[in-house]
Amino acid sequence: MAVGLKAPTTLHPVKGIRLAATHSGIKNDTAVKDLTLIEISAGSSLAAVFTQSHFSAAPVQLCRQQLSSEPASRYLLINSGNANAGTGAAGLKDAIECCAAVAAATGVSRAQVLPFSTGVIAEPLPVLPIKSAIPELLAGLEADNWLAAVQGIMTTDTLPKAVSVRLDVDGKTVSITGMAKGSGMIKPDMATMLSFVATDAEIQPDSLQQMLQQMVAGSFNSITVDGDTSTNDSCVLIATGATGARVDLQHAQFCQALQDVFEKLAQAIIRDAEGATKFVEVNVEGAASEADARSIAFTIAESPLVKTALFASDPNWGRFIMAIGRAPLSQIETNLLDLYLGPVRLLHQGLPDPDYREALGQAEMAGEEIVIRVNLNLGHATARIWTSDLSYDYVKINAEYRS
Amino acid sequence: MAVGLKAPTTLHPVKGIRLAATHSGIKNDTAVKDLTLIEISAGSSLAAVFTQSHFSAAPVQLCRQQLSSEPASRYLLINSGNANAGTGAAGLKDAIECCAAVAAATGVSRAQVLPFSTGVIAEPLPVLPIKSAIPELLAGLEADNWLAAVQGIMTTDTLPKAVSVRLDVDGKTVSITGMAKGSGMIKPDMATMLSFVATDAEIQPDSLQQMLQQMVAGSFNSITVDGDTSTNDSCVLIATGATGARVDLQHAQFCQALQDVFEKLAQAIIRDAEGATKFVEVNVEGAASEADARSIAFTIAESPLVKTALFASDPNWGRFIMAIGRAPLSQIETNLLDLYLGPVRLLHQGLPDPDYREALGQAEMAGEEIVIRVNLNLGHATARIWTSDLSYDYVKINAEYRS
Repeated sequence: MAVGLKAPTTLHPVKGIRLAATHSGIKNDTAVKDLTLIEISAGSSLAAVFTQSHFSAAPVQLCRQQLSSEPASRYLLINSGNANAGTGAAGLKDAIECCAAVAAATGVSRAQVLPFSTGVIAEPLPVLPIKSAIPELLAGLEADNWLAAVQGIMTTDTLPKAVSVRLDVDGKTVSITGMAKGSGMIKPDMATMLSFVATDAEIQPDSLQQMLQQMVAGSFNSITVDGDTSTNDSCVLIATGATGARVDLQHAQFCQALQDVFEKLAQAIIRDAEGATKFVEVNVEGAASEADARSIAFTIAESPLVKTALFASDPNWGRFIMAIGRAPLSQIETNLLDLYLGPVRLLHQGLPDPDYREALGQAEMAGEEIVIRVNLNLGHATARIWTSDLSYDYVKINAEYRS
Repeated sequence: MAVGLKAPTTLHPVKGIRLAATHSGIKNDTAVKDLTLIEISAGSSLAAVFTQSHFSAAPVQLCRQQLSSEPASRYLLINSGNANAGTGAAGLKDAIECCAAVAAATGVSRAQVLPFSTGVIAEPLPVLPIKSAIPELLAGLEADNWLAAVQGIMTTDTLPKAVSVRLDVDGKTVSITGMAKGSGMIKPDMATMLSFVATDAEIQPDSLQQMLQQMVAGSFNSITVDGDTSTNDSCVLIATGATGARVDLQHAQFCQALQDVFEKLAQAIIRDAEGATKFVEVNVEGAASEADARSIAFTIAESPLVKTALFASDPNWGRFIMAIGRAPLSQIETNLLDLYLGPVRLLHQGLPDPDYREALGQAEMAGEEIVIRVNLNLGHATARIWTSDLSYDYVKINAEYRS
């Protein structure tokens, strides 16, 4: 079902990072990986952002605690098939027990192991299978194991999502490789379901956190499948510094390369959104504030009536203006508004464009990739977000998720 | 598809109201009514509330203008099959032309005729068929024509929605009869898609407007199918005073009867929601503010993942806490929260109830009518809203709406 998305081919190793994945037994299908371990070399920097859900999952709570006070993280332990969310004190205890097992086997402190989980909410984490798989994972750690690692974090994803680039920094070859998972329950509030991006450039921790927040704003915080924010959203950016090439927010070339990785990962989630048959970009321009621009973009993107029209390839633009009409806004002048499908103008100054013909709109809607553009002609704020359509398969996937 | 909804049987005439409906030619199917006229006797009071959409339809704009400045309304002209929304100045001119035709044929002023439209957005109103049908409508006006009238305002509704009660006020028999239409694009902001309720009690205009706003708050403003607010939402309450029985907001028995009518009409819209297989009540209690209570209730009700779980009869309560977790709130203590499905407690003080068994939740979800209850145990504010599930048929109906 994925729209214009292929499995990743070349994933460059990142110096200072080793990875392994296996089937531990959380999922029933023994052919499917469900547990990934990422080893981070000593001296690396790590930044992270997490879901803003009031009901954040046990691993998210634990990560937040450990990152606020503890020594540098050395291992990320990531399971799929179980979210360890809505599991209360037992869930925290389970996550700690898994981290402690990694610590005991490697000699780092328990607080240097960060846990991540994704999958069904409100079921106990299967601790035993996870602990039993740790020796195999440690034995299997390899720098060139990114593909296996991303396979280990998938849930309803139909394809692994990973992006890799290399660039030259001060004569040194720097790699950036990242992976993400997520397909439904997607409207990240600070990050997406799970994403891990690493580089072997050297970046100071403060700079790294700022950089991550900047990258997330235009990527994972600008996508929505169903408006539903997960309890487990986590996004981690690691800089091992193993190449000795030092960069910061002022390094335009590195930041552009990093932004490309984040945007492609965020787009990959939408391209593989549950039941998706369309990849849709919503651009809002000329708004009085960024909040207004985002409000319109997300209201269009999350409207079930817009999404079913997209699924039907129907240029029923009455639904676009319905959605704009209900968006919470500080300012709008409906008689200034322009509306486009790709290059085709549907509305000019709030009225149907006299040159518009249904066939023009139909041609734009027929493709797999659709661009909706709204210009409020009021100010200079903009927003650009990505979303998917609402299909029979979205309902099917989510009605049958636990059966 | 309607859940626990039957076609109305006895609809009491309201003294001072006469109605007629016909097929004018807006819709293709000649067996289907698409135009309704309601005549209101001189001396009646009328109150109305309308959509808060930035893109309100031409008839809504016209009603607002006329109600703010003009003499008492004497006719309501309501068409289905075309919303006359997104139609700009031409749409206003078209609506005025239809009202003028009624005025010319009856001798009232044009401003005493209020227009209402519902149907496809962004297509020109077919003025000629409407005007041509007016003589037939005037000739057909009858006090006992409520069923035909509601048939004339239906769009994707599978059943006509009307409710009627009689009560004794000061020894006089007072009737309240109301009708509503709406099935998708339902999250009324001030009213529902279209609803008209009349009584032959006598109510002063100021009191009537207050009464309408109070009734709407707990009925049409407390339902959602898809979170999509229409451009045409309008709700009208008429008091003809023809019985001479005078009531106001202090008349508890009358207000209770009127509230029952509004609640049943609002429920009827949800029972007949597009593709609905479930009628769902969401109760939130113990919130710090009514805004918080409504925020949680609507976030649960509009979550596509909750709605697909409801369709699947799956007690996947992780999705309920996901939705609560993402609701914008002023205050929450997750370790105080209780969650119920019907009488079955799933979560107690934020943790899975030790006595909960999946079979208990399954039994509650298996029925056609489901009650979800959240107690925040923080304050005394509450909210109660009604919603439906998200089924294959919702997608089908809305993907094929114009084809």
